[in-house]
Amino acid sequence: MVEDRASNAGNSILILDQTRLPQVAVQVRLNTVDDVAHAIRSMQVRGAPLIGVTAAYGVALGLKHDASDSQLAQVVDMLAATRPTAVNLHWALARMQRVLQKFPQGCNALALGTRREVAWHEARAIAAEDVATNVAIGEHGLRILTMHKPKDAVLQIMTHCNAGRLATVAHGTALAPVYAAHAAGIPVHVWVSETRPRNQGLLTAWELAEAGVPHTLIADNAAGLLIMQGKVDLLIVGADRIAANGDTANKIGTYLKALAAQAHGVPFYVAAPLSTIDFSCPTGYAICIEERAAAELGAGDVPVVNPAFDITPAHLITGILSENGVVSVEELAQWKS
Amino acid sequence: MVEDRASNAGNSILILDQTRLPQVAVQVRLNTVDDVAHAIRSMQVRGAPLIGVTAAYGVALGLKHDASDSQLAQVVDMLAATRPTAVNLHWALARMQRVLQKFPQGCNALALGTRREVAWHEARAIAAEDVATNVAIGEHGLRILTMHKPKDAVLQIMTHCNAGRLATVAHGTALAPVYAAHAAGIPVHVWVSETRPRNQGLLTAWELAEAGVPHTLIADNAAGLLIMQGKVDLLIVGADRIAANGDTANKIGTYLKALAAQAHGVPFYVAAPLSTIDFSCPTGYAICIEERAAAELGAGDVPVVNPAFDITPAHLITGILSENGVVSVEELAQWKS
Repeated sequence: MVEDRASNAGNSILILDQTRLPQVAVQVRLNTVDDVAHAIRSMQVRGAPLIGVTAAYGVALGLKHDASDSQLAQVVDMLAATRPTAVNLHWALARMQRVLQKFPQGCNALALGTRREVAWHEARAIAAEDVATNVAIGEHGLRILTMHKPKDAVLQIMTHCNAGRLATVAHGTALAPVYAAHAAGIPVHVWVSETRPRNQGLLTAWELAEAGVPHTLIADNAAGLLIMQGKVDLLIVGADRIAANGDTANKIGTYLKALAAQAHGVPFYVAAPLSTIDFSCPTGYAICIEERAAAELGAGDVPVVNPAFDITPAHLITGILSENGVVSVEELAQWKS
Repeated sequence: MVEDRASNAGNSILILDQTRLPQVAVQVRLNTVDDVAHAIRSMQVRGAPLIGVTAAYGVALGLKHDASDSQLAQVVDMLAATRPTAVNLHWALARMQRVLQKFPQGCNALALGTRREVAWHEARAIAAEDVATNVAIGEHGLRILTMHKPKDAVLQIMTHCNAGRLATVAHGTALAPVYAAHAAGIPVHVWVSETRPRNQGLLTAWELAEAGVPHTLIADNAAGLLIMQGKVDLLIVGADRIAANGDTANKIGTYLKALAAQAHGVPFYVAAPLSTIDFSCPTGYAICIEERAAAELGAGDVPVVNPAFDITPAHLITGILSENGVVSVEELAQWKS
């Protein structure tokens, strides 16, 4: 995601249209909050952290002509309804609302100008923090990867979906440690799951190729066999929402990989910013699972059920990795602020 | 698969080209053993039992002009090399060879004629036995389905890949009990996995729709969530090879479903003819896993690994269902003839 500072004056943002990757890298300009809502809903932007950042900019765009409390509430409600599972979206919207409500709404030009400025400032702060967060995740994760690196062999990492640069402002979450290892000269290879039905694995393959990180694409179905065959040293995935007990909502199919990892004693890590942890949510059972369109499976008139996320129970998770470091699920509460 | 009795004289067979389903149902005429080898390799015919039957007819076609021992050996070797994992292929070829070797090869017309006739007779016998076998699997399986049917609710069955009519001469293996239940008026609903990368789930959806059996297509990734949510009463899949200890090779992704079934106490059955059990193979580790073309994932130049099968360890299997009945993996040895 790129904010357009050139055309400036807080009038628009530029995003990379992820529905057109990996075929073509096309930037799309978003001028209004409706554009932003559409981009999130249609998955032109995707990945929990990037959705949060984009929504924050969406609030700023939504206050272009009217910065009243009622307009703010309307903009926030509209953006909140775009996708239900990723908590970063709601976290970013709540933060924007909290900050903006400290400033008087008024109806004069000065009040409007102030609120708009504050909104842009806060959205940019959220974007900048995402970068710093992911750098920290990469550094903490690098220690884990080094720990699991087999002597005299390439470290074999498996991931799911895309929790890389494309899912964030920069570096990625699950892939941040991979990039950090690659930069440090540690030989890594990434098993990339296709991630049906939206094939975000192709996004992961695309960005790993761009960065020169060795990788191999597999059908989602192949994960169990590869883990059974000892071809995976550790798994690392992102998250859309982590409940207080450590249960983790992530892209559909994550749970199956976690089961296979446990069956063969392979470590399974979740990497996410602290903003992905929802301490108000006691367990995974309380997480709303988004159901997406049947058309995503491309099977014509065949009846379809298409949940976008699943829940990986805490007991399958070796550790949770954030900008604060790595903890076991039992220690997660220490991060509650 | 349809033998062409009309054009007759054992000159060709007709198959339904499964690579063109579910879009169009096109029959293809196979005139030579090369045609048969191509049809198996390219998965125009697929499904362990159907591969076995088609290969048997392939032997008959291969003896059209030369029924010598050396020609027989050449034909058998060629067909055996088409696909490595499904044992029914090798079982059918061994049976054809064993039967044919009892008849003198000679080089006169009488000997050629006799061997050709015997080959067609034996291939037809294998096809007819497949039908009878699947009827028996359906009857035994119906008892299992009835046992797991929740009171006052539809029985929710999950399957993987296609182990139905299309994978056999008739009725199917894993789907035979489903058809039997449907015919008996027991309300069933089948969760059909897409089965990447070849999407054989669409074949399953197609044949269930033809038969009027309620079903829903899901991405392979969704199986874990649905099982966790209690939406599956039992799983039933086919098999490509069952080792003596019960370890089962089946379509890639089967293992992940078996892990999820075990995690939630949902019964997991394997349905296959006795010819799928390879008592010469002690465990799943001895089973050769076919690696198929990268192009099946349709990801252009991205490096790909594409194993076609995985191994479900015996301890995850509730029961094995054949024409002889249902046994636990511990009891499997009693079927050794």
